[in-house]
Amino acid sequence: MNVKNIQKQLARFAEERNWDQFHSPKNLSMALAAEAAELLEIFQWLTDEQSKEIVNNEKEMTMIRQEMADIFIYLARLADKLSVDIEKAVHEKIEMNEQKYPIELSRDNAIKYNRRD
Amino acid sequence: MNVKNIQKQLARFAEERNWDQFHSPKNLSMALAAEAAELLEIFQWLTDEQSKEIVNNEKEMTMIRQEMADIFIYLARLADKLSVDIEKAVHEKIEMNEQKYPIELSRDNAIKYNRRD
Amino acid sequence: MNVKNIQKQLARFAEERNWDQFHSPKNLSMALAAEAAELLEIFQWLTDEQSKEIVNNEKEMTMIRQEMADIFIYLARLADKLSVDIEKAVHEKIEMNEQKYPIELSRDNAIKYNRRD
Amino acid sequence: MNVKNIQKQLARFAEERNWDQFHSPKNLSMALAAEAAELLEIFQWLTDEQSKEIVNNEKEMTMIRQEMADIFIYLARLADKLSVDIEKAVHEKIEMNEQKYPIELSRDNAIKYNRRD
Repeated sequence: MNVKNIQKQLARFAEERNWDQFHSPKNLSMALAAEAAELLEIFQWLTDEQSKEIVNNEKEMTMIRQEMADIFIYLARLADKLSVDIEKAVHEKIEMNEQKYPIELSRDNAIKYNRRD
Repeated sequence: MNVKNIQKQLARFAEERNWDQFHSPKNLSMALAAEAAELLEIFQWLTDEQSKEIVNNEKEMTMIRQEMADIFIYLARLADKLSVDIEKAVHEKIEMNEQKYPIELSRDNAIKYNRRD
Repeated sequence: MNVKNIQKQLARFAEERNWDQFHSPKNLSMALAAEAAELLEIFQWLTDEQSKEIVNNEKEMTMIRQEMADIFIYLARLADKLSVDIEKAVHEKIEMNEQKYPIELSRDNAIKYNRRD
Repeated sequence: MNVKNIQKQLARFAEERNWDQFHSPKNLSMALAAEAAELLEIFQWLTDEQSKEIVNNEKEMTMIRQEMADIFIYLARLADKLSVDIEKAVHEKIEMNEQKYPIELSRDNAIKYNRRD
């Protein structure tokens, strides 16, 4: 995925509409959380099983794809504004998670490391 | 960014810990929203201006990078589970947004298209 | 529940710390969403069944009570700032819901009224 | 505010539609977070100042009152399901906050107690 290219498109999109005035990191974090909640809303009354079978419902999947795109769009925009390299951050976080959740302690147990007894 | 490769790492990470049982689309949408809110929390008491200057605060930026990584990690994991091509979805959404927010109607105006008078 | 009295206590608490500067409606809406997500996080990896049995886990219930209190605290504070009468708003919304979700159309079906086919 | 009475109305509403099957604590925590994010969305592009002046915009205030009502409705419903006494929880949390945020340490400083240097 060419993140830089997407960020350039988003920057141009905002510039053409004079929307940079709205895109502070604070406001972008709000928009990101609001989009994540719209995705959440799609799943809120589904059983676990129904949430897996949703892949077969094209109408629902269209909405899901759009919400997921919105989440990435605001994440990429925020990363651009704060000069965060998403890919690098992800690799560092995966490494941290390997430390925080050692296989033997974490098997079958998704409890957050700081709440493990 | 090599999304496929990240998804493979995340899948292996989950498999080694027997965490696939937790990673239903429903649960992943919850984890994604929870991470987006942790990012939000960093900005909640800051002024717009302070949220821009946060780039100069290395301690805060470390937290921000980690939260942004977590958001992408759950987004990538969900995309893997639902066979969503994030990059394609993003390009389609950017095109939709060009239609929904025409430049002349949207200048200086970030009101959501369906709430515009 | 004496909402007015709680709002007075919260106003005094903020005043003593000179926190009114932080408590704009915008910032309070962020804090409220962040607290709602902390509650969400407690349930994210639980099955539906486990989420019901959580009442028997005193340690988890203590956390849940605190998060629920935080949500109400920010809701009451925002209501105070915007002169919203929560009780009145709730009664009006319950009436609206009776209209939006007629019993015969809604039985066994929690799909949001504007997404019903 | 008569919380018990509201909870009874909500319980009847759910029962009439056979919605109890959807109202697990897990699902209610999702619905609550989704509603909190809808409130957030109203404020996301506003300046701090505009968020204060929103009280003069009757159209926006109608939306805000409805979202705040929805938040309380799911909070009350969850409290009912988990036998949480909201008022008691709020009073205990206010007391905790008095300890966690001593006036002298907290003046002009809203940083979360566990992130204070």
